[in-house]
Amino acid sequence: MAKQETGAGVKPQAAAVIGGGVIGGGWVARLIQNGVNVRVFDPDPQASRKIAEIMANADHALDRLTMAPPPARGTLVFTDNIADAVSGGDIAAELIVEAVPERLEIKQAVYAEIEQTAKPDAVISSSTSGIMPTDLQAKMTNPERLIVGHPFNPVYLLPLVELVGGKRTGMAAIDKARSFYTAIGMHPLHVRKEIEAFIADRFLEAVWREALWLVNDGIATTDEIDDAIRFGFGLRWAQMGLFETYRVAGGEAGMAHFIAQFGPCLKWPWTKLMDVPELTDELVDAISSQSDAQSGMYSIRELERIRDNNLVAIMQALKANDWGAGKTLAAWEAALYDAVPTTTDDDITKPLETMRRSVPAEWTDYNGHMNEARYLDCFSQATDAFMRMCGVDTAYVEAGGSYFTVETHIRHLDEVKAGAEIYATTQVVAGAGKKMHLFHSLFAGDDRLLATGEHMLLHVDMNSRSSSLPGAAVAARLEEFVTAHKDLPMPDGAGRAIGKK
Amino acid sequence: MAKQETGAGVKPQAAAVIGGGVIGGGWVARLIQNGVNVRVFDPDPQASRKIAEIMANADHALDRLTMAPPPARGTLVFTDNIADAVSGGDIAAELIVEAVPERLEIKQAVYAEIEQTAKPDAVISSSTSGIMPTDLQAKMTNPERLIVGHPFNPVYLLPLVELVGGKRTGMAAIDKARSFYTAIGMHPLHVRKEIEAFIADRFLEAVWREALWLVNDGIATTDEIDDAIRFGFGLRWAQMGLFETYRVAGGEAGMAHFIAQFGPCLKWPWTKLMDVPELTDELVDAISSQSDAQSGMYSIRELERIRDNNLVAIMQALKANDWGAGKTLAAWEAALYDAVPTTTDDDITKPLETMRRSVPAEWTDYNGHMNEARYLDCFSQATDAFMRMCGVDTAYVEAGGSYFTVETHIRHLDEVKAGAEIYATTQVVAGAGKKMHLFHSLFAGDDRLLATGEHMLLHVDMNSRSSSLPGAAVAARLEEFVTAHKDLPMPDGAGRAIGKK
Repeated sequence: MAKQETGAGVKPQAAAVIGGGVIGGGWVARLIQNGVNVRVFDPDPQASRKIAEIMANADHALDRLTMAPPPARGTLVFTDNIADAVSGGDIAAELIVEAVPERLEIKQAVYAEIEQTAKPDAVISSSTSGIMPTDLQAKMTNPERLIVGHPFNPVYLLPLVELVGGKRTGMAAIDKARSFYTAIGMHPLHVRKEIEAFIADRFLEAVWREALWLVNDGIATTDEIDDAIRFGFGLRWAQMGLFETYRVAGGEAGMAHFIAQFGPCLKWPWTKLMDVPELTDELVDAISSQSDAQSGMYSIRELERIRDNNLVAIMQALKANDWGAGKTLAAWEAALYDAVPTTTDDDITKPLETMRRSVPAEWTDYNGHMNEARYLDCFSQATDAFMRMCGVDTAYVEAGGSYFTVETHIRHLDEVKAGAEIYATTQVVAGAGKKMHLFHSLFAGDDRLLATGEHMLLHVDMNSRSSSLPGAAVAARLEEFVTAHKDLPMPDGAGRAIGKK
Repeated sequence: MAKQETGAGVKPQAAAVIGGGVIGGGWVARLIQNGVNVRVFDPDPQASRKIAEIMANADHALDRLTMAPPPARGTLVFTDNIADAVSGGDIAAELIVEAVPERLEIKQAVYAEIEQTAKPDAVISSSTSGIMPTDLQAKMTNPERLIVGHPFNPVYLLPLVELVGGKRTGMAAIDKARSFYTAIGMHPLHVRKEIEAFIADRFLEAVWREALWLVNDGIATTDEIDDAIRFGFGLRWAQMGLFETYRVAGGEAGMAHFIAQFGPCLKWPWTKLMDVPELTDELVDAISSQSDAQSGMYSIRELERIRDNNLVAIMQALKANDWGAGKTLAAWEAALYDAVPTTTDDDITKPLETMRRSVPAEWTDYNGHMNEARYLDCFSQATDAFMRMCGVDTAYVEAGGSYFTVETHIRHLDEVKAGAEIYATTQVVAGAGKKMHLFHSLFAGDDRLLATGEHMLLHVDMNSRSSSLPGAAVAARLEEFVTAHKDLPMPDGAGRAIGKK
């Protein structure tokens, strides 16, 4: 079997982020969304505004990324100095992320300040895209706790983080970092041998250099180059990398055959590539003006949203196929679901809140509103949430029990557009023996009733695929809800047939 | 505004494909699925088996790729020689695809044979990944009709095709090829200056060489390299290329600032990259065995299906966001829909077939069957198809009219699994004034009834978002269906309320 994403890992109790630019701010957003309290230091007076903007983007993306219940958000505190960020809170930072400019002497000065107050076993993680950790840790008192944790923009969405240790890094720091990053939904990749630019950026630089040549020589514009990527191999690389792709292309004959076949002809243009183009003013101007022509019709903010919506949609698509970055997402969601108690401490005598989210752009149709089929998506999620409250969780389904919907009645009462918050409540009409009869109401965030969904479900033996009685614990829990709801009035529209009042 | 995909273009009346390997077979599949008759020549006695396997994969993918009604399939004929493929059919090939091994003398020999019988204005398109068209056409009698049309594997899914002309290529051939490829759902990219390896493969080669170094030096395994790609920048490149991604990363300061900031530090590892690793037996063995460890648990056929399912899901995700390769898909689908007559010549006195497809893997849920919400997806598609039959097409909606569903009743009668063929029929219960009352039945391919869907719709003025009367033509067409169906018996389950017999 393929590698499993575990979704395990333990979050840091508190984190510090030194440097609040695009990368530092992305770390802040991911940590806070995963329930980690973060203290940030950045001398830039604009830092809090910039991080708020990144946070807004990250929340927009999270709304679309998952229906799983996120943990309570972490808190965000801006500090006046590094010491306060590292150890000023109630709990000293267990993870200290450095995301300052890519200059060795600046980073080393930051580590010197961090070490004055950091917990001895805190992990100090540099976001550098290429400096060797051995160089970073050269002047440290406790270099064993310094690692590189190299993320990819946007940090709050892309799962990859390259973990690199230096000569004096302890394995404990690597292990702890792997656990931290896994717990906040990432895919840590341990780069076992230290090398400049690590793994991913070596490819990015090779491509970047090649692209500079193509623009420099007038072969292609930035726009044409981007199209050559995103309409072709970019689609392949979102799900399989280089070698797996070529393995497939090589067919039954295998990798050795593929290399024998394509190795020689891949040599053709190599001679040209030995050279490095000068970043002359002319080349920089050419790139800038071509990029304006290509993307200038969008603001950077619009481009960020487009990018994020696309990344979310791709990751969800891969999740449905149980593959790659989608598997990371699924493991993270499973951990979020596992953290939800299957019983509820809320007042259960009222209809239960069983779904809350915003309407993703991809749920709308040619009529400019949430497509009719998505109403049943919402009700299906609400049913699943109620089933979990009754103890029908992953383990129960794997043990062979579940409920199947046998009948559905939806009244579409009002429309709703992309981005709007929506939530569902569930009233238990009946639940005994094999049957479960639910009535969901779907509301907009302003409590406007959008639709009702009435559903009859039957408990099923997953092996025989025929109806069966639920387990005793599930039956008892369902009975509790039935009792709690028995005096609620029958909802408007319940028991109705199509077209009849 | 961003570039528009037109979806326009005119298909070749007939095509010849010379060489039936992975690339040639992929061309055959794409052409046949788009209604083009294809004649293939390949001396390999296994060619017809291999192409049948590619065709099966391509059909599996097409089933998931679109709900749009595909054109009638093209025919496939294997010929005994090049002349028969090029001109042996009722209609001589307008597009002649060459997909033979990457050796100049073989390709030139093939062109010599093609030219003996080809129509003077046929486009001869080489699938070479790197040989310059000027070299390819050097010995041709009519070199103006030779172009490179470089596709990407899998050809039946990836939209990119690089169009490259040589010194003696005529612009008419480029224009004709662009029209042909657009019509079969591709995104032609005209490489304006001839260069070895064109655009995309220059990047692939740069990355490939870098990857060989990383394996050669023991820095990373094939598995780790692939993860570094697909969990990070690969996700970015499926939707934006290099320059647009960096434009966003650079923020408001723009591309010039980005280059100034990252240009120097991107130089670090360049010195190493000047060298080319030898493809020694040791390196080839290392790659092969690492690739086995990484992917050997899947057969090549399984990997192809995984890859294709992922590509389909990613392209559908991008379509929902109206972006990149998803835009190409949408334009192609729009052309397919436009080709469907809004009236039907079938006997309309029976329930009408309004949907037919197979169940995509991503439609199934933790219960191992098509998720309940997807039943409404099917019925929603059936409703849309019936609306088109009544004349409610893209133009009608853009002019401000549409129908909104106000009530839905579904009986889930049987389950269905991924890959099964399903179809829906529609009976018109009533349709007058603002109302449309439909009863859909969803069947498995073996005519097993899976579900029924009863739907009440109201005609809506899209500007005021309130109910209104349909246009006269739509009302008249709907009335025709009502009349045709008025003597049909009320379907079992119609008019029922939840839980009542």
